[in-house]
Amino acid sequence: MTVQDLPDFVSRHIGPADDDVTAMLKLLGYASKDALVEGAIPGGIRATAALDVEAAESEPAVIAELRDKARRNQVLTSMIGLGYYGTHTPPVVRRNILENPAWYTAYTPYQPEISQGRLEALLNFQTVVADLTGLETAGASLLDEATAVAEAMTLMRRASKAPKDAVLLIDAQAMPQSIAVTQTRALPLDIEVVVADLRGVTDAARLRAAAGERDVFGVVVQYPGADGAIHDWRALTEAAHEERALVTAAADLLALTLLTPPGEWGADIAVGTSQRFGVPMGFGGPHAGYMSVRKGLERTLPGRLVGVSVDADGAPAYRLALQTREQHIRREKATSNICTAQVLLAVMASMYAVWHGPQGLARIAREVHGKATGLAEALAAGGLETTGDAFFDTITVVVPGRADAVVEAARERGINVWRVDGDHVSVSVDETTTDAELADVAAAFGVNAPVPGDGEPTWDAALQRTSDFLTHPVFSSHHSETAMLRYLRTLADRDYALDRGMIPLGSCTMKLNATTEMEAITWPEFASLHPFAPAEQTEGIRELIADLEQWLCAITGYDSVSLQPNAGSQGELAGLLAIRGYHEARGETGRNVCLIPASAHGTNAASAVMAGMKVVVVGTAPSGEVDMDDLKLKIKEHGEQLAAIMVTYPSTHGVFEDTISELCSLVHEAGGQVYVDGANLNALVGLAQPGKFGGDVSHLNLHKTFCIPHGGGGPGVGPIGVREHLAPYLPSHPFAEELTGETGPVSAAPYGSASILPISWAYVRLMGGEGLTKATETAVLSANYVAKRLSSHYPVLYAGDDGLVAHECILDLRGLTKESGVTVDDVAKRLIDYGFHAPTMSFPVAGTLMVEPTESESLEELDRFCDAMIAIRGEIQEVLDGKVAAADSVLRHAPHTALSLTAEWDHPYTRAEAAYPAGVDPMRKYWAPVRRIDGAHGDRNLICSCPAPEAFED
Amino acid sequence: MTVQDLPDFVSRHIGPADDDVTAMLKLLGYASKDALVEGAIPGGIRATAALDVEAAESEPAVIAELRDKARRNQVLTSMIGLGYYGTHTPPVVRRNILENPAWYTAYTPYQPEISQGRLEALLNFQTVVADLTGLETAGASLLDEATAVAEAMTLMRRASKAPKDAVLLIDAQAMPQSIAVTQTRALPLDIEVVVADLRGVTDAARLRAAAGERDVFGVVVQYPGADGAIHDWRALTEAAHEERALVTAAADLLALTLLTPPGEWGADIAVGTSQRFGVPMGFGGPHAGYMSVRKGLERTLPGRLVGVSVDADGAPAYRLALQTREQHIRREKATSNICTAQVLLAVMASMYAVWHGPQGLARIAREVHGKATGLAEALAAGGLETTGDAFFDTITVVVPGRADAVVEAARERGINVWRVDGDHVSVSVDETTTDAELADVAAAFGVNAPVPGDGEPTWDAALQRTSDFLTHPVFSSHHSETAMLRYLRTLADRDYALDRGMIPLGSCTMKLNATTEMEAITWPEFASLHPFAPAEQTEGIRELIADLEQWLCAITGYDSVSLQPNAGSQGELAGLLAIRGYHEARGETGRNVCLIPASAHGTNAASAVMAGMKVVVVGTAPSGEVDMDDLKLKIKEHGEQLAAIMVTYPSTHGVFEDTISELCSLVHEAGGQVYVDGANLNALVGLAQPGKFGGDVSHLNLHKTFCIPHGGGGPGVGPIGVREHLAPYLPSHPFAEELTGETGPVSAAPYGSASILPISWAYVRLMGGEGLTKATETAVLSANYVAKRLSSHYPVLYAGDDGLVAHECILDLRGLTKESGVTVDDVAKRLIDYGFHAPTMSFPVAGTLMVEPTESESLEELDRFCDAMIAIRGEIQEVLDGKVAAADSVLRHAPHTALSLTAEWDHPYTRAEAAYPAGVDPMRKYWAPVRRIDGAHGDRNLICSCPAPEAFED
Repeated sequence: MTVQDLPDFVSRHIGPADDDVTAMLKLLGYASKDALVEGAIPGGIRATAALDVEAAESEPAVIAELRDKARRNQVLTSMIGLGYYGTHTPPVVRRNILENPAWYTAYTPYQPEISQGRLEALLNFQTVVADLTGLETAGASLLDEATAVAEAMTLMRRASKAPKDAVLLIDAQAMPQSIAVTQTRALPLDIEVVVADLRGVTDAARLRAAAGERDVFGVVVQYPGADGAIHDWRALTEAAHEERALVTAAADLLALTLLTPPGEWGADIAVGTSQRFGVPMGFGGPHAGYMSVRKGLERTLPGRLVGVSVDADGAPAYRLALQTREQHIRREKATSNICTAQVLLAVMASMYAVWHGPQGLARIAREVHGKATGLAEALAAGGLETTGDAFFDTITVVVPGRADAVVEAARERGINVWRVDGDHVSVSVDETTTDAELADVAAAFGVNAPVPGDGEPTWDAALQRTSDFLTHPVFSSHHSETAMLRYLRTLADRDYALDRGMIPLGSCTMKLNATTEMEAITWPEFASLHPFAPAEQTEGIRELIADLEQWLCAITGYDSVSLQPNAGSQGELAGLLAIRGYHEARGETGRNVCLIPASAHGTNAASAVMAGMKVVVVGTAPSGEVDMDDLKLKIKEHGEQLAAIMVTYPSTHGVFEDTISELCSLVHEAGGQVYVDGANLNALVGLAQPGKFGGDVSHLNLHKTFCIPHGGGGPGVGPIGVREHLAPYLPSHPFAEELTGETGPVSAAPYGSASILPISWAYVRLMGGEGLTKATETAVLSANYVAKRLSSHYPVLYAGDDGLVAHECILDLRGLTKESGVTVDDVAKRLIDYGFHAPTMSFPVAGTLMVEPTESESLEELDRFCDAMIAIRGEIQEVLDGKVAAADSVLRHAPHTALSLTAEWDHPYTRAEAAYPAGVDPMRKYWAPVRRIDGAHGDRNLICSCPAPEAFED
Repeated sequence: MTVQDLPDFVSRHIGPADDDVTAMLKLLGYASKDALVEGAIPGGIRATAALDVEAAESEPAVIAELRDKARRNQVLTSMIGLGYYGTHTPPVVRRNILENPAWYTAYTPYQPEISQGRLEALLNFQTVVADLTGLETAGASLLDEATAVAEAMTLMRRASKAPKDAVLLIDAQAMPQSIAVTQTRALPLDIEVVVADLRGVTDAARLRAAAGERDVFGVVVQYPGADGAIHDWRALTEAAHEERALVTAAADLLALTLLTPPGEWGADIAVGTSQRFGVPMGFGGPHAGYMSVRKGLERTLPGRLVGVSVDADGAPAYRLALQTREQHIRREKATSNICTAQVLLAVMASMYAVWHGPQGLARIAREVHGKATGLAEALAAGGLETTGDAFFDTITVVVPGRADAVVEAARERGINVWRVDGDHVSVSVDETTTDAELADVAAAFGVNAPVPGDGEPTWDAALQRTSDFLTHPVFSSHHSETAMLRYLRTLADRDYALDRGMIPLGSCTMKLNATTEMEAITWPEFASLHPFAPAEQTEGIRELIADLEQWLCAITGYDSVSLQPNAGSQGELAGLLAIRGYHEARGETGRNVCLIPASAHGTNAASAVMAGMKVVVVGTAPSGEVDMDDLKLKIKEHGEQLAAIMVTYPSTHGVFEDTISELCSLVHEAGGQVYVDGANLNALVGLAQPGKFGGDVSHLNLHKTFCIPHGGGGPGVGPIGVREHLAPYLPSHPFAEELTGETGPVSAAPYGSASILPISWAYVRLMGGEGLTKATETAVLSANYVAKRLSSHYPVLYAGDDGLVAHECILDLRGLTKESGVTVDDVAKRLIDYGFHAPTMSFPVAGTLMVEPTESESLEELDRFCDAMIAIRGEIQEVLDGKVAAADSVLRHAPHTALSLTAEWDHPYTRAEAAYPAGVDPMRKYWAPVRRIDGAHGDRNLICSCPAPEAFED
């Protein structure tokens, strides 16, 4: 024994204890986990060596290592701006949301009855965005401002009646990273992007001139501009509309408390970031991007949209609206591949608005503006010229030949300002800027200390906001900390997250998000870095990123990794763009067909389309595997056009397919590339490596396999791993020279959502190679245990040759539904009464439930789940036996609220049977706050901002 | 406007907004808050100048100041030991208990139906202590180890049949601070304490010899000793029992996983601290002290005791047991004045045991012991002599003349060891000690690096533990983080704390505990300091303490403050000891009468007795004020014996008595001192100063007025303020030279619960003088608002001349009870159904409810409470009108659980009326987890450790 022999995190992360494992293996008839894994995973792909990741360290040791890295970041005061600003996170919000598992371990609100708390918070977010931008409908958040601009481009392309060859026009003062991401996204879609100075455009002729005499389908302007100047875009907007183009304003939410909102001067779309509403910069993210649109465009909004509907008792209830427009339904017909929102960050931003209210936000904006005017006046008094008289928080200063010197002088005073070019420096102030910092930055320019102004507008009266915003009572009812604390608790209490029980979601890997893993993300040394801060100030986080890249290579068998994609969908796109770049570089520009198995995630198809590829579907064999005959046929058919195949492994059916090696060979032989979707990597870590068994590229989901919490529906991180030949085509970034890839950026920040990478870093460090492998084995064991226990009650749809599943299993309810009328929906909602989140519904096969227990659930919890499913099977039997009609059954009326127990009771089952079925401990009972929600009602009567309080009266 | 004009914390702390204040004043018929305060507070005592505390800073600025102070603490590795050890707080416990308002804002579990979560955690704590010490019954925690020893002394004195002049015998290797505190407490009780080396005592004769041939009523031994040596106390114990003395073992809980527990070798009592079970050292506290006793002594245990009983449905339920033995009932007949436990810390320590389980704890103990043996062997190999062959974690090394040099050499290596004297240094290892640190400390002694041993016992086989412990399933069911997280959430969900709603407890001041105030307590720079660390390493915390002392002087008008008392009860004792010291120094040793008004807190009387005083009760006039005629009579009667009067101001009746100045003068004229109990200081801050209107000494409750959260029943901090003439009699401490008072220490650590002082520091800093005053005014306003709204429904018992109350009001239910049979208990429990914690019940007047709303509750919440009370009045009317019998009423059957709604319903009211009475929002409903608890049943059938799981089956 040594002093390092500390409590083993591995056994804290993994649910089943050794005794439990023995019992589980016994039920399955295997002598050891090794034997089970041997049976489950095809020998051909099995890794031959132990995972090459160093041994685990204890939790205190890992925290010490992280503190060491943190110390090697220098947190200077950032006045860089460019979409990232200092902000004060309200402490009550940080502690009770960002540091509270009830919020951060929640899943995407697909089961709305048990997600009412965060759905309300998201509705607040939508209301904030809609109100501040002056547009009708806002979505529940996008990934960042730059991708939001890119999404606006495709939205405008769809909505515009301009000719097919019309161009996108972007003002030169749009954020540089937004321009770059938009260009990346435009390229494969054959959209031409023209960047021009649009401030002089006042009529249609000038608009066309700016576009090089081309038709224009969309215009993007920044408001205020990257240089800080505020321009009145009314004339441009009218001109664009004349030309059948739409106009997108990328706008600063804080500035909009004082400026005429885009919706009022005619913009069709507004996009931006809500970062400065209390979300730390975090070296680039995550933050909630936003988009709002005018009436008529709401059904084309990309991403999640929360709306108000009613439940079975007629009470108002929230749920995701208009889901049929999303990628998982529309697949290759989708126009965006975005799945996740940035829910946790959108919730925080919304609560910043709830906390400050409309007056508070406007006061902060005036203070910020006052500091900026003070600085501008001091610079002017010192004889310096600034560009633009009308500004909000940013001023660009003309310093001929002196930019580097000024930047350096500021740095010496602990402040980062932005070098625009050799002759210009820009400075952005924010709510955290102090008088002393203003004095220091002025001194860096060689002038005397500024006296902050009173926030009077520097802009035209025509741009002064006159309309109200955030008039809903929620924004004026929680301004004391006591009231806010209770509001947050009330919302959290409505939701079911991992802190209450199992969330057995197939393909979503809802495992433990350990406290130690979460620790570092709120440390200022990680949270307060600007993404464009000089490299020498960010050594610690860069080292952490390098470690993580190296470990992910070791785990996946790939040669290079990019951590830039800030969601799985962005990883897919980046991976396909790498393939595209590779083919193009070899002159094989005709390769544009992407084969996709019928069982694939809908996102795959949507991503392929975004990468400029044509989707060809490969059928499924009756066994659930890819139909190899059909594959050969399709390969033959598309021959020279074959760009890639996208295949998930183990398959979305939860099976290790034997044919994977052959599949890869066939595609390679035909000149195609193999994209292995890493959604199911939790079944592979330590056991098999996609980079070795045939994959050329994969995206991973750090929020699935690597413990980043789902945050109630985001953030996610979707890095890609590639083999050596694709490495030159990884994403680059205009402000990160070290990213030398030939593909443009896919995220606003060089390292995407960098501030949450410490979570995955800590997970790998705490588990070590051995622990990671043990986790995978346990995940496979637990899935097989559940499959075995339930197989005599529900058919398990697919299994490998040994009768084993991988890390998840599909329960086939179709037969039962046909015979009894009881649907998967009924079972899912009834599980709520039993105290569970439902498994994945109807994916990848309609009418089924896909269960993924993960390694973190204890045997006790697995059994509690199996017992509940078996008891529900008994309830279905009652219907099958004709004892009760499906329509009258306890299943159809689920979930049952506590309130419903007090009503007249005319059900054929008792209140106790409804609320406390077998196995439910009254001391642990979770109560859904609403009855089953009628989603269609809400889609027919679309309401996507806070409803009047009267709606909630009886 | 300046850049410092940040969001105002004052308005975040105070609930009612300006508009609300206007509305409240209107109802009361006052034009302004000033006018109201003018009316409420007697002009004679009103402060004439604004409060002399500097202006408030913003939250970020205050955090920055705290970070600056934190930086000025140097956190060295502590190997000092002496009852304080490094420990790893399980991160899941820290985040979900210590940083979770659901736990830390809870009140003492006097309403057990809404406290089942923490009561279960405390029962776990009691089980841990009882199991590890091998004694039958453990209490729910004491303040620290030193006061626990002192409590054991008085317990032994009561239980022993030894003659009145028998002495207490303490082994010389007891912790020095325990000896010192015990001596402080013995002095006023005329108990003689003999400190002697007891290791040679093997029979009754030697025992008497050690005691100077006196009778002995009690013996205290340390196990292992302060020097680290483990001694077999069996022979001593037998000898003591022969002599009619009881034996107390002050024992280390971690060591007891390996050592024969005291209960098995005959000790009657065990005491100690649970600090090293995951609670940071925190420069001295707070931590949970413990006491357990053998069968037969359980009814004499001081402090809180949790027991199992049943609820109205016959289900098992927890509540505080045997309350009739406590100070608030027994008053001057009580034998301890202890009120609070250290609940939050006891909960943490219990969860450390739940997390590690019996095997895990024993493994940690073996590892610790292995490090110690490794070090001992290395030192021996280096030719150094150590004292004692049998040790657990501490070794004392003989270094003739070299102690200072060794200590300095260790310090240079970042380690604090303990200088016993010029020739001896002791070193304690703990679970956090690393190999590198072992090597460094060895190097400081000039020897080579140790090799940790395997934890094999260095003690006699007779002292090797063979009995099982922690066999209850709760200690083996939550070893994965997922399981632990859910257990903590489940428990938290059962409890009602400030994060759910108002806790309107008269005299307990349940105000906001702001996140920013809580921030610093978990920073390592405060949390990881040993209380006896060298002063030069603790500059930051000392500066913070000095600031706080100064501010408390400014607020109270006193000249000096001691922050040492770690609870209000200890403050009372310290204050009375100061008075005692003052009289004695003046030769007035005959002054031993303490006048106490009939309405006083029971603690006052108990403290007076502990200070060696005789309690004389002063009657209450019909108006509720102190009966001045009776006061004059009693002063006359006791003349030269008058030591002090203890008076609460404003009175416990919630009224600013006009007579306070006269009262103080009368007592002073008679040579007595005035002790103003500061329990109600929240009504005075900024408006009046007890140190100026007649008080000589007061204790304050930082956990009431100064925002330290109640933690579910502790920690508390009870500093005292004194006028100049009493300053020489403030508590001292053996290891704090700067504390020059002539009274001995009253707490184990020089500054008591130092690690939570940043909370009060931050509160004062965030509010400033103006904000503090505004808070007081609002507290008075809110109390009067509630009194006014309710006065036509319930008589308000007392008011001042203007018809105004102070910061709380008493609702008199006695008439209603007499007429209807509905009791205060019924109303209190019915309030749970409405979603409220009950007000203070039957104090200071039986049959009444005392309501203190505090300044932090919003008008909306005040109205919600008033509406509930008015609705309940309507329910009482139904009984008065004969529509329903009290025994059948919704009041008598309250609280109603969700489970109860599913049972057969034969009540004369509906389920909806039971669970969702008027004003209850179904989306915010709080459900009590159990029905009304039968306390008497539990007292008759005393069970104070975890019951078998079968007890919870139907």
